Amino acid sequence: MSESELLAHIAARSADLAARFPNLIVGPGDDCALVRTPSGDHLLLTVDHLVEGRHFDSSSPIDLIARKALARSVSDIAAMAGTPLWTLATGALPPAYPHADTLFDQMSRWARHWQCPLVGGDISSTSGPLVLTVTIIGAPHPRGSVLRSAAQPGDALYVTGTLGHSLRSGRHLTFEPRLREARQLADTLADLHAMMDISDGLGRDASRIAAASGVRIDIEAALLPCSPGADWRSAMSDGEDYELLFTASGEVPPDVAGTPITRIGRISAGAGCFVTTPDGAVLDASTMGWDH
Amino acid sequence: MSESELLAHIAARSADLAARFPNLIVGPGDDCALVRTPSGDHLLLTVDHLVEGRHFDSSSPIDLIARKALARSVSDIAAMAGTPLWTLATGALPPAYPHADTLFDQMSRWARHWQCPLVGGDISSTSGPLVLTVTIIGAPHPRGSVLRSAAQPGDALYVTGTLGHSLRSGRHLTFEPRLREARQLADTLADLHAMMDISDGLGRDASRIAAASGVRIDIEAALLPCSPGADWRSAMSDGEDYELLFTASGEVPPDVAGTPITRIGRISAGAGCFVTTPDGAVLDASTMGWDH
Repeated sequence: MSESELLAHIAARSADLAARFPNLIVGPGDDCALVRTPSGDHLLLTVDHLVEGRHFDSSSPIDLIARKALARSVSDIAAMAGTPLWTLATGALPPAYPHADTLFDQMSRWARHWQCPLVGGDISSTSGPLVLTVTIIGAPHPRGSVLRSAAQPGDALYVTGTLGHSLRSGRHLTFEPRLREARQLADTLADLHAMMDISDGLGRDASRIAAASGVRIDIEAALLPCSPGADWRSAMSDGEDYELLFTASGEVPPDVAGTPITRIGRISAGAGCFVTTPDGAVLDASTMGWDH
Repeated sequence: MSESELLAHIAARSADLAARFPNLIVGPGDDCALVRTPSGDHLLLTVDHLVEGRHFDSSSPIDLIARKALARSVSDIAAMAGTPLWTLATGALPPAYPHADTLFDQMSRWARHWQCPLVGGDISSTSGPLVLTVTIIGAPHPRGSVLRSAAQPGDALYVTGTLGHSLRSGRHLTFEPRLREARQLADTLADLHAMMDISDGLGRDASRIAAASGVRIDIEAALLPCSPGADWRSAMSDGEDYELLFTASGEVPPDVAGTPITRIGRISAGAGCFVTTPDGAVLDASTMGWDH
């Protein structure tokens, strides 16, 4: 069973949770869970892995490993237009791992950088590769969280920044989570409907918006803003871009907080996610991406 | 650097966090972090690892692996006399791991059992052993959280249940987190001062109360409630008992919520943690336990 299939199973089996637990608003299946505290505050909850050999290699600088571990979860909070508040981190460390102190020091530093202090964690040894996890608790945007499930027929599909070659260029270690961009979009766009961050590839991730919203998404390959050296196939499939993918029905500015916005497709009634190639073929985009 | 040394470094470097981030009340160093939401709700945050070959072996039943992954973090919430609310879980899975679906199904089931639904998570593959993490967010007891740092000279030291041989007997996979016991102690004992759960061994964990509270702890080996087959050395060192260790100055009943309570030592001015053996020797207890 692939990661995607497993996550879909978990989401399906969790469909009754919000009805059974009144303090849960959005359960598994979005970038974050959304919960309600006793006094009525809404909070965002997210956790992400970083596995050596999969999300980074052992030659990566410790500071950038720490940075990426934090940035992935900060990006999940950004995907809901939220603000990160607190961080918990774990490290399963290989035998006699010499960088543990530096690693946690740098994780603590990056957590302060994004204003979500590292307030707790756990450390173990493992016979395998380094495994880090970062949990972040955040506050949603005052207008409410921007979910994956709110895309509407008639919306256009947009992306921030550029896509593709993130692993090859090293950008996957240095990307800036789109916190400011997401908040400003939620501040200013009354018709902002659905949003997520692109971690597993545009095709795979846009398919998740389509499935969660019960709509069809068509992407135009010729419109994709490709990173230097990347073509439309890389932009659709590479993953690890951590750009915002969103749908809106009204007018959308050409940039937000200094980051360009590109219209790349449209939402209609139906199901599935497709890409129209530069030579006019229409391909299923739902497998364009990668399973961790 | 050992796990204990590393955790001590992290706690020391985090000492300024609560002053810099007003929504943080208790940072690294206790069983849970304690934070304050925008409307003033207090929340407990904790995360724990479960690593194959360290916290369980590969022959353990999947259901009990899932149970232990949840129970360890639930026990951290109990150690603060809190109530678990929500759970996030991650799994770094070995190649072609056949039990992923069952494992997450059972983790979800145990999360419901303890009334803290599994609301999100992350799954990755790893070339190493299975690594699970469970984050739980909880609500503190209405009287406030019972911290490690509040032991006072003149207190007696108590423990629930029995200690020792938890790994050998298999109890480490089936223990019941002391949620009800902890809440009832906080409900009824006005002079309950400090509390934690015993995960790394009585000697090592009692030393943490002594250090956090700035007091000396003396344990009487002859008073220890040993599990079947265990002697006082096992009771001091084995770890994985997940019993409550607490200090109080007033009268303490012989049991709580059906679980026996035993007085095992005393708190005085000074520093360190010591055990008086049955033949009258006084030993440093601070290394009696294990590093994960």
